Amino acid sequence: AEIFDKETYQDNSVAGVVTGLAWTSVGGEILFIESSLSKGRGKLTLSGQLGDVMKESAVTALSYLRSKAETLGIDHRVFDQYDLHIHVPAGAVPKDGPSAGITMLTAMASVYTQRKVKAKVAMTGEISLIGKVMPVGGIKEKILAAKRAGIKEIILCKKNLRDIEEIDPQYVKGIEFHFVDRVKEVLDIALTKSLVDQPLKFTFSQEPKNSQD
Amino acid sequence: AEIFDKETYQDNSVAGVVTGLAWTSVGGEILFIESSLSKGRGKLTLSGQLGDVMKESAVTALSYLRSKAETLGIDHRVFDQYDLHIHVPAGAVPKDGPSAGITMLTAMASVYTQRKVKAKVAMTGEISLIGKVMPVGGIKEKILAAKRAGIKEIILCKKNLRDIEEIDPQYVKGIEFHFVDRVKEVLDIALTKSLVDQPLKFTFSQEPKNSQD
Amino acid sequence: AEIFDKETYQDNSVAGVVTGLAWTSVGGEILFIESSLSKGRGKLTLSGQLGDVMKESAVTALSYLRSKAETLGIDHRVFDQYDLHIHVPAGAVPKDGPSAGITMLTAMASVYTQRKVKAKVAMTGEISLIGKVMPVGGIKEKILAAKRAGIKEIILCKKNLRDIEEIDPQYVKGIEFHFVDRVKEVLDIALTKSLVDQPLKFTFSQEPKNSQD
Amino acid sequence: AEIFDKETYQDNSVAGVVTGLAWTSVGGEILFIESSLSKGRGKLTLSGQLGDVMKESAVTALSYLRSKAETLGIDHRVFDQYDLHIHVPAGAVPKDGPSAGITMLTAMASVYTQRKVKAKVAMTGEISLIGKVMPVGGIKEKILAAKRAGIKEIILCKKNLRDIEEIDPQYVKGIEFHFVDRVKEVLDIALTKSLVDQPLKFTFSQEPKNSQD
Amino acid sequence: AEIFDKETYQDNSVAGVVTGLAWTSVGGEILFIESSLSKGRGKLTLSGQLGDVMKESAVTALSYLRSKAETLGIDHRVFDQYDLHIHVPAGAVPKDGPSAGITMLTAMASVYTQRKVKAKVAMTGEISLIGKVMPVGGIKEKILAAKRAGIKEIILCKKNLRDIEEIDPQYVKGIEFHFVDRVKEVLDIALTKSLVDQPLKFTFSQEPKNSQD
Amino acid sequence: AEIFDKETYQDNSVAGVVTGLAWTSVGGEILFIESSLSKGRGKLTLSGQLGDVMKESAVTALSYLRSKAETLGIDHRVFDQYDLHIHVPAGAVPKDGPSAGITMLTAMASVYTQRKVKAKVAMTGEISLIGKVMPVGGIKEKILAAKRAGIKEIILCKKNLRDIEEIDPQYVKGIEFHFVDRVKEVLDIALTKSLVDQPLKFTFSQEPKNSQD
Ligand SMILES: [Ca+2]
Ligand SMILES: [Ca+2]
Ligand SMILES: [Ca+2]
Ligand SMILES: [Ca+2]
Ligand SMILES: [Ca+2]
Ligand SMILES: [Ca+2]
Ligand SMILES: [Ca+2]
Ligand SMILES: [Ca+2]
Ligand SMILES: [Ca+2]
Ligand SMILES: [Ca+2]
Ligand SMILES: [Ca+2]
Ligand SMILES: [Ca+2]
Repeated sequence: AEIFDKETYQDNSVAGVVTGLAWTSVGGEILFIESSLSKGRGKLTLSGQLGDVMKESAVTALSYLRSKAETLGIDHRVFDQYDLHIHVPAGAVPKDGPSAGITMLTAMASVYTQRKVKAKVAMTGEISLIGKVMPVGGIKEKILAAKRAGIKEIILCKKNLRDIEEIDPQYVKGIEFHFVDRVKEVLDIALTKSLVDQPLKFTFSQEPKNSQD
Repeated sequence: AEIFDKETYQDNSVAGVVTGLAWTSVGGEILFIESSLSKGRGKLTLSGQLGDVMKESAVTALSYLRSKAETLGIDHRVFDQYDLHIHVPAGAVPKDGPSAGITMLTAMASVYTQRKVKAKVAMTGEISLIGKVMPVGGIKEKILAAKRAGIKEIILCKKNLRDIEEIDPQYVKGIEFHFVDRVKEVLDIALTKSLVDQPLKFTFSQEPKNSQD
Repeated sequence: AEIFDKETYQDNSVAGVVTGLAWTSVGGEILFIESSLSKGRGKLTLSGQLGDVMKESAVTALSYLRSKAETLGIDHRVFDQYDLHIHVPAGAVPKDGPSAGITMLTAMASVYTQRKVKAKVAMTGEISLIGKVMPVGGIKEKILAAKRAGIKEIILCKKNLRDIEEIDPQYVKGIEFHFVDRVKEVLDIALTKSLVDQPLKFTFSQEPKNSQD
Repeated sequence: AEIFDKETYQDNSVAGVVTGLAWTSVGGEILFIESSLSKGRGKLTLSGQLGDVMKESAVTALSYLRSKAETLGIDHRVFDQYDLHIHVPAGAVPKDGPSAGITMLTAMASVYTQRKVKAKVAMTGEISLIGKVMPVGGIKEKILAAKRAGIKEIILCKKNLRDIEEIDPQYVKGIEFHFVDRVKEVLDIALTKSLVDQPLKFTFSQEPKNSQD
Repeated sequence: AEIFDKETYQDNSVAGVVTGLAWTSVGGEILFIESSLSKGRGKLTLSGQLGDVMKESAVTALSYLRSKAETLGIDHRVFDQYDLHIHVPAGAVPKDGPSAGITMLTAMASVYTQRKVKAKVAMTGEISLIGKVMPVGGIKEKILAAKRAGIKEIILCKKNLRDIEEIDPQYVKGIEFHFVDRVKEVLDIALTKSLVDQPLKFTFSQEPKNSQD
Repeated sequence: AEIFDKETYQDNSVAGVVTGLAWTSVGGEILFIESSLSKGRGKLTLSGQLGDVMKESAVTALSYLRSKAETLGIDHRVFDQYDLHIHVPAGAVPKDGPSAGITMLTAMASVYTQRKVKAKVAMTGEISLIGKVMPVGGIKEKILAAKRAGIKEIILCKKNLRDIEEIDPQYVKGIEFHFVDRVKEVLDIALTKSLVDQPLKFTFSQEPKNSQD
C-alpha cells in the first residue's frame, strides 16, 4: 500500500502547504494541501482525485480569498496573471467532503502572500463563501491522528467544541485547541508574519488604467 | 451530522447574504444564500451541490437583474468586470428546486448594490425571467422552521396565501407576512436603503465609447 | 403541486413574453415563453428544464430571426452585444418537443424589436429554419386549455386545420383561428406595431467599419 | 403523428434548401436539408436530432466546401464572419447515417453562393472529404418515395447503378437518373447558374492584409 | 451493405490521401485516410466514427509532424492559420486502434507539403510521439487484402518481419515490402518529390515579428 | 500481441524521452514517457490511454516544473508559446496510477531544457506538487523488469528502500540504486549537463513589457 511520509511535511519552509485532518472509513488521517503558482492566465487546477464537494470547497475558498484580496495585501492582478494549482497527495486516493475548506483557504492565503505557515498546526473545518467556519464530523478520530503525527495546535470550528469535550482528556493532552467562527481567525493563527525563504517575486504585465466610477 | 449555525447569519452586516426557506424530506429548514464579487471577467460560479433546476433558477435571477440593472442603479460594467459566486451552505448537502429563486435574486441585488438586507427576514418563491414571483410548496413546514429560527418577516407569493390560511394561527403568531406578485416588491421589502458597512468600491477598466444608434 | 398563475400573463405590456400551448400527459396547458436581453456578448441562455428537441427549436428560431434581421428592422449588432435568455416557467417542470417553435420565435422577435405582443393570442407550431410553420399534435387538448385561459385568437399551421374541423364547434366558439404557412404570417398577426411601454434602448459599442465586397 | 408538408418545399426560391432521400424502418422518405447564414464568427450549428454519423457527415461536407471555396467563387472570409446553421425538419424525429452527405453539401454550396437549386431534384449519397460520392443503401425505397413526392431527377453514386437496375422499370418511369462519382458532378447538376431572388449580400469586416509566402 | 470503391483511390493525384490496412473481425481491409486543409485557426477535426485510441493516434502524428515542421519544409504558421480535417471513410463504420498511425502521419505530411503520395503503396504501423514505428497485429489478413486491392508496395515495422516470414510466399508474391523503424523512412518511401497537380498555395496573415532569445 | 521494442529506446539522443517502470497484472514492465514541443499557445496534450490519476500526475508535474522554471533555466514564455505533448506508448494499452510522476517530470524537464537524459536509467515514484518524491508499489516486479531490459541505474523514493532490502541480492546485482526525497535529486541524477544533438532552438513572440511591482 501507499506509504505516506508525514514527517517530511512538518517543515514549513515552503509557502502554500498546510496540514489538514481527514476522516476516512479506517479512521482519522493527516492530509496535506499543497498549492503552487506559476505565471499564467488565472487558471485553477485541482488534483488528487478530489470529489465534487471538495472541488466546490476549493472554488469557494478561492472566491472568498479574491473578494478579500485587498485586506490581505494581495495584488488582485495575481488572480489573472498566475495559475493556481491545488494538489492533495496521495494522487491515487479519492478524497471528498467540505472539511478541508479552511485548510485549502489557508494554503491559498499562504501561497498568494508568500507568508510562512505556522509549524505543527493542523486544522479541519468547512468554509462558507462569506468566511464563516462551519463544524465538521469525525473530530475524535482526526484529533488522534493529529496527535500521532506530532501536531501541537489544532484549529476547529467553535461548534466542534462539544466534540472535544467528549474526548478523554488524556488523548488531547499537549495539544492546544483554537475554536473559531471566522476564516479571519484561522489566518491570524496559522499564517505567520514572516515570508518564506526565497519568496516568489510576483511580476505583472501592464494593464489598461482603471478609472474609479 | 452537520450542525448548522443559524444564529450567526441573523447578522445582516454583509452584503449578499439572504435567508431562504427550504423544504426537505425531514421538514422545513432555513437556508442561506451567500454571494460574493471579485474582480474578474463576469463569470458566474454556483456551489453547494445545487441541482440543475436550482442552477437554472440562479441564472434566471441573474438575467432578470442584468436586464433591470439601470433601474436598480447598477453600472452594467460590473457584470463584465466582476465575477459573481453564489454559494449555499452546507457544502455537502444536495439542494434543488426553484423555490430559492427570489432569495437568490435578493442576494444578487444586495451584492451588486451593496445595500444591506433587512434583518430577520426570510423568503421563498420561484422567480420568472420577467420578474414574476410564483408560488412554491412546503409552506407550512417552512414557516415553522422560520419561526424556530427567530425570523420576524416572511415574503411569499400571493398565490401561497391559501397555504398560510390553513395553518393554525398560533404557529404564525409574531410573524409578519408579505404576499407579493413581483420581484420588485420583494426587493422593496428586503433591501434596505443603507449600504453595508465598508461597502465594496467598484472600479472599472476603461471601455471603448458607446454610440447610441 | 405547483400552481401556475395564468391570468398574470394576459397583460402584454412587457416585450418578449408570448403564450404557447403545450400538450402533456394530463391534457392541454397554457405555457409562457419569456425572453430578456441584457448587455453582453451574444450568449443564448435557455432555462426551464427544456429537453434537447425544444432547445434545438429555440436555436433554430434564433437562426431564422438573425438571418431575417434586416427585414425586421433589427440592427445585427444586437446579436453580438446583447445576451438573450429564454425561460419557460415553471422552472421545475420538464418540457420538450418542437411545438413551441413559433412561440419562441415570436417572443424573440418581440424582445429584439421591443414591439408589443397582441393580447389574448396563443399559438402552437413547429418552425423550420427557413421560416415554414409545421403542424403539431394535441390540437384539441391545446384548444380547450386556451379557451379555459381566456385566449381569443389562436395561431396554427394550415396543416392543423383538419384537427380543428374534428372538434365539436361549441368548444371553439368565441376563438378566432389563424391558419398559417410561414413565420412571417405569425409575426404579422401576433406582433403589434406599437412598442411596449418603456422600450429598451439599445446601445452599441463601435465596431470596425465594414467594407462591402 | 407528425404530418410533413412535402409540396411546400418543391419551390426552389430560397437558397440552401435541398431535397434528400432517407430510408427508415417504415420505408423511404423525402427529407429536406435547410441551411441559413447570419453574420457571426463562423460557428456551425446542426439541428433536427441528428446522430453523430450525420453530424460528422455535415462537418465533412463543410470541410470539403471550404477547401474548394476558391473554385466555387466563395470568398473565404464568409466562413469566419457568418454562422452556418443546418437544420433537418421535422425537429423531433431522430435522423442518422451518412447518406445525406451530398444533400448537405449541395445545401451549403447553395447558401454560400446564393445560387438557386434546380427544382424537383433529389439526391442521396455519402460524401468523402476529398469529394468522392459513395454508394448508400435503401435505394429502391428511396426512389419510390421520391416518385410519390413528384421528384423528376435523382442524383446517385455510380456504384448504386446496380440497385436501380434491379427495380421494375415501371417504378422509375419518368425519373431521370444521374450517376456520379464526384461531388463536382452533383453541384453541376443540382446548382443552377442563377442566383435566388433577393440573394443575401455578404459584407465583411476588414482583416489584416495577407502576404503570400 | 456499404460498398466501398477501392479502385477510385488508387489515383494519387490529390494531396493528403493515403492507403492503410485495417484488420477487422471479418478479415483484412483496405482503408483510406483523407485529409484536407482550409483557411482557419489551426483546428483539428477527426471524422469517420474513430475510437479514442485512433483519435489519440492522429493527435500524436500531428504533434510529431509539428515538431519536425522545419525539417520537412513546412512553414509553422500553417498549423495556426489553416484547419486540418482527417476523415476515414466509410463514415458510418466505427474504426479504432493505433495501427493507422503511420498512414495518418503520411497523409498529414502530404497535405501540408502538397507532395504527391506514391501510387499503389499501403502501410500499417503504430507511430510514437518521437517518430518510432511500432509493430501491429493482423499482418497476414492485411497483406491479403492489400494484394486483392492491387497494392504493389507495403510499409511495415521491422518488428513485423517475423509475421511476413510466416506467410506462404505465394500470397506475397509481387508485393515489395519495406520494413522500417522510423517515421522518416516511411516518408522517404511514400512521399514523392513531386507536388500534386494544382497544389494548394498557402497564404498567411502577418504575425508579430519573432525575436530569437 | 503488441511487441514492444525496448532496446530502441536505450538510445538517449532525443530530448524528452525517459524510461519508467510500470507494474501490471502480469508483472513489472518498462514503459517510456515521450514528450515533444511545437510552437503553439501552451496547450498540454496527453495520449496513450492514460487514466485520470496518471493525467493528474502529468498536470502536477507540469505545475511543479513551471513554478521552478527560473531555477531550471527555463524561459517562462515557453509555457505560453509552445504546446507540450506527453505520449506513453503503446497507444492502445490503458495505463493509470501515480507512479510515473517522476518519470514524466524528468521527461518534461529534458524537453524544456533540451538536456540529454542519462542512458540506462529508469525510475518510478509519485511526485507531489511541491516536489516531494513519494513511494510506490510493485517495486520487486519493476526491478526485475528493469534488469531484463538492461537498465543500470534505478531512481526510487527513499521510503521504497525497505522494498529493495526484501529482494534477494542476486536479482539486483549490477544495478545502482538512487534513493531520493525530492524531485531536485531526481533531475540531478537523470538529466545530464549536455544538450541533445540538434537541440530545439526556442523562438518567442514579443510580449508587452513587464513591470515588477
Ligand atoms: Ca458528488
Ligand atoms: Ca481539513
Ligand atoms: Ca435534473
Ligand atoms: Ca427560498
Ligand atoms: Ca433527447
Ligand atoms: Ca453513434
Ligand atoms: Ca440524402
Ligand atoms: Ca476507449
Ligand atoms: Ca494502417
Ligand atoms: Ca495493433
Ligand atoms: Ca478514475
Ligand atoms: Ca514510473
